[in-house]
Amino acid sequence: MRICTIASRFSRIALRFWKLICDSGDRVAIFISRCDFVGHFGPLGQGIANAVGLALGEKHLAARFNKPDNEIVDHYTYCILGDGCQMEGISNEACSLAGHWGLGKLIAFYDDNHISIDGDTEIAFTENVDTRFEGLGWHVIWVKNGNTGYDEIRAAIKEAKAVNDKPTLIKVRSFPYILFGNDNHHWLWVSEQGKLVQRTWKCMGAKEVDATRKNLGWPYEPFHVPEDVKGHWSHHVPQGAALEAEWNAKFAEYEQKYKEEAAELKSIITGELSAGWEKTLPTYTPDSPADATRNLSQQNLNALVKVLPGLLGGSADLASSNMTLLKMYGDFQKDTPEERNVRFGVREHGMGAICNGIALHSPGFVPYCATFFVFTDYMRAAIRISALCEAGVIYVMTHDSIGLGEDGPTHQPIEHLASFRAMPNLLMLRPADGNETAGAYMVAVLNRKRPSILALSRQKLPNLPGTSIEGVEKIAAKAADELKKEGKTVRVVSFVSWELFEEQSDAYKESVLPSFVTARVSIEAASTFGWQKIVGSKGKAIGIDRFGASAPAGKIYKEFGLTPEAVVAAAKELF
Amino acid sequence: MRICTIASRFSRIALRFWKLICDSGDRVAIFISRCDFVGHFGPLGQGIANAVGLALGEKHLAARFNKPDNEIVDHYTYCILGDGCQMEGISNEACSLAGHWGLGKLIAFYDDNHISIDGDTEIAFTENVDTRFEGLGWHVIWVKNGNTGYDEIRAAIKEAKAVNDKPTLIKVRSFPYILFGNDNHHWLWVSEQGKLVQRTWKCMGAKEVDATRKNLGWPYEPFHVPEDVKGHWSHHVPQGAALEAEWNAKFAEYEQKYKEEAAELKSIITGELSAGWEKTLPTYTPDSPADATRNLSQQNLNALVKVLPGLLGGSADLASSNMTLLKMYGDFQKDTPEERNVRFGVREHGMGAICNGIALHSPGFVPYCATFFVFTDYMRAAIRISALCEAGVIYVMTHDSIGLGEDGPTHQPIEHLASFRAMPNLLMLRPADGNETAGAYMVAVLNRKRPSILALSRQKLPNLPGTSIEGVEKIAAKAADELKKEGKTVRVVSFVSWELFEEQSDAYKESVLPSFVTARVSIEAASTFGWQKIVGSKGKAIGIDRFGASAPAGKIYKEFGLTPEAVVAAAKELF
Repeated sequence: MRICTIASRFSRIALRFWKLICDSGDRVAIFISRCDFVGHFGPLGQGIANAVGLALGEKHLAARFNKPDNEIVDHYTYCILGDGCQMEGISNEACSLAGHWGLGKLIAFYDDNHISIDGDTEIAFTENVDTRFEGLGWHVIWVKNGNTGYDEIRAAIKEAKAVNDKPTLIKVRSFPYILFGNDNHHWLWVSEQGKLVQRTWKCMGAKEVDATRKNLGWPYEPFHVPEDVKGHWSHHVPQGAALEAEWNAKFAEYEQKYKEEAAELKSIITGELSAGWEKTLPTYTPDSPADATRNLSQQNLNALVKVLPGLLGGSADLASSNMTLLKMYGDFQKDTPEERNVRFGVREHGMGAICNGIALHSPGFVPYCATFFVFTDYMRAAIRISALCEAGVIYVMTHDSIGLGEDGPTHQPIEHLASFRAMPNLLMLRPADGNETAGAYMVAVLNRKRPSILALSRQKLPNLPGTSIEGVEKIAAKAADELKKEGKTVRVVSFVSWELFEEQSDAYKESVLPSFVTARVSIEAASTFGWQKIVGSKGKAIGIDRFGASAPAGKIYKEFGLTPEAVVAAAKELF
Repeated sequence: MRICTIASRFSRIALRFWKLICDSGDRVAIFISRCDFVGHFGPLGQGIANAVGLALGEKHLAARFNKPDNEIVDHYTYCILGDGCQMEGISNEACSLAGHWGLGKLIAFYDDNHISIDGDTEIAFTENVDTRFEGLGWHVIWVKNGNTGYDEIRAAIKEAKAVNDKPTLIKVRSFPYILFGNDNHHWLWVSEQGKLVQRTWKCMGAKEVDATRKNLGWPYEPFHVPEDVKGHWSHHVPQGAALEAEWNAKFAEYEQKYKEEAAELKSIITGELSAGWEKTLPTYTPDSPADATRNLSQQNLNALVKVLPGLLGGSADLASSNMTLLKMYGDFQKDTPEERNVRFGVREHGMGAICNGIALHSPGFVPYCATFFVFTDYMRAAIRISALCEAGVIYVMTHDSIGLGEDGPTHQPIEHLASFRAMPNLLMLRPADGNETAGAYMVAVLNRKRPSILALSRQKLPNLPGTSIEGVEKIAAKAADELKKEGKTVRVVSFVSWELFEEQSDAYKESVLPSFVTARVSIEAASTFGWQKIVGSKGKAIGIDRFGASAPAGKIYKEFGLTPEAVVAAAKELF
């Protein structure tokens, strides 16, 4: 479709693989390494899981859009991973799914160089990776001379491409001559090919750099690219342009012949939404039946899927609790990749990172994923990468408070809202009823460069007067009625999103929270941490600053003091 | 050593295994299931990782304390895990380490019942678990009839015990007849042994319950334990007492013959610290050289290991960056399990959960583990379990801010301090110099039922006047000097721990932060989220509410406005 390359900081290693892949004549290569999408060292294991998402994106689009006479979607996803990535649990989660889905166009190079920061991998990593990957349903190839065995690597790439029903791991045994410039990293120095002469943990001095250059036969100045190297690489520039032109011509043909499909595919490639898409979102009135926001969420997802060709996603084995099934579609599986319900299994971390890969594959993909809100703890590193690399993943997080029944404190989020409100470039949305849920989805879909977490309830909530999809301000409580009966003037404000509120004008903020009103009470079934910003020095924050407990929702709310009576009492103290 | 049982909610399954283990005549069994330590459904995968920690604890103590004539430490660790646990990456991390360490006394039953919440495991989990575990270095046994093949299970337990150099996975193929009472869970109903007759996702009604009881030949009232069942189980009560008496006699012998070792072992078993242990902590004066708190941390760890027989731990492949090596000791490895430096590899999540297992093995174990602070994101679920099940793990988290060099925003914590300050039952400690680091360790060691996170710097920090191990109040800034020069009265307060401050008396809090002083400025190289509680409505919080960037520490601090000048300017606005 297009060429997407992400350079690796393991430059020597990555460049070698990259060159050989380019040489292999791939029309299009998507390429990731253990580096992340912002150009720095990435958190280990994220890259391979992103790659699984990219390969899923290709397989899905190919199944939906390819025609016998025009295979418009057709590219490989390459990934380089190291020992550290292999040790991280996220890579096992994602690779288990890649095997399950039979992602035949995913080719991963495992740079098996036996080196970790703390020393030889022997000290902590002696498992048989080949056997594990065979268990995960991968095709495994072993390249024994990763340093100079170019023909071996070329043959491995060829073999990998011939295997269509399984992803391939090319385990490349290499001897490291990596140099790190950072003063807290180790460096390695080999005098001869494959023979480790010296190893130390200190920074390399000028003397050692010189000796290493000599050993490697590299007589050039720093940052100098010799002409022959430049020549070898630069022919890929016109080659790439030619490949792009070829693809564009192919797409023009496709567009003529398959108008409808072409428009849909184009929307996924460009990220342009169809005009008026948001009108499909359901609306509610105070007469609409009370419902849990997780159910309202499902109504929104099933409405949106009709107008968003790139919407797809699923849950980490809680689809029927998170209410995330798209009823018009079947499961994305090895033999039904055109479907849109993704079954992630109990693999939250892998799920988040795979969704990052999907989101980054094409701007019009709108991936969503789901679990209980408390289990964002399992996938937090992937969520942070969504925020950092601007992947607009929608996190559908249900069971958003202690009101979830008897599963108890391991399943009850307390600090999670606060913890995400503190995370940059992420929208933490907690809608209170139908219209706010629809509004939250509108915001989430529009924010393609900012991930959203929707915290949704398991309990039924009434539809409130004054809420709207567009509005932010809303009224939402019972306690106010009590106080009003006593002649107090009370305003109830529902804070769907702290981030969106912060982004409003000062005048708007003042209109919602007038500064002369210092008698403020916040109530949230979660940690009070952070609420002092809203209630001010003279206000009071009601919440839960301990772990939850195992009890029915009504009982636990009462036990923890989350009742209209408690709010009334707190408010009266402030008047 | 002692019997520690944690009942499973998969009662039928767990009880069956448990009974057979008891029957096998184990002197001591430590038993975990996929449930956590507080009696509820645990987050999946934590249990098996805890079990690895428990088995590590046994292997370590056995190596240190057993004598040819008295093997005082000698027990198996049993664990039951399900498909969900197998899918979670944490279990792969922990099981990879168990294989690496050759934890021969770890025996895990994998209840391979092909059922997940969303349906048959076929939809998301088709990997070959046997092969994967063989790759991880485990001995794998397959019990084909897990429902009634008791002899098969007995034989498997016997075989597992005969394998001393590898952990064993007993894959038990079972057909489920699990009943869940919660209305959002599925239930399964089999009419005959092994034959699935009906499956639905709704709650079971009285009629179905009756039919199931009939099918299973269970004529009793709810909660009734028939006499023969009671008889079968109750003989374990006197048996257990006899085993305990036997062990006590053995220990009495041990104590007489190996006085010194017995005292040490006793301290680990009881958790009683030797009097005056805290005197070993280093102290500093303003004349002590400026140093990074990560280095000061290492001085503390190496001092503590001399007086805490249960101190052991390590890093997730960053020992030389986190400064966590205990210099008097070698590596805990398969053949050197008596050593105390644990090499976790790049497996943060498994590391945290393994440390929970170590902590819960014996109250005198003081496990610590380390990585960069930002990578707490990878292990947050395990840290939450530390807090929830009161395991006093010490989390040594270095590189605590944007001041860590060129690794960039993926390695720079922003929201992490706030996110942990919001977590219940956890001490978030951020010492500012030598004495505060020692004080933080004192607090962490004393809090055996509350985990601690120490956020430590990579940069050198000066030792400040007025700090002490015992004190909380301290002075810590440059900006204050500027303001004082201009005749302002300024107090600089270092907030080592918000939680400990909260626990102080109102009078103390007022003495540190007098309420009449409303001109307050907070400064922290992290999210400002939550600081409004401290600075009040009229104060100002200086921090970083965006992701970091790649630059040397000095440059990035300046760029982000974290300078004495910025603090002076903010303060002046408030006067």
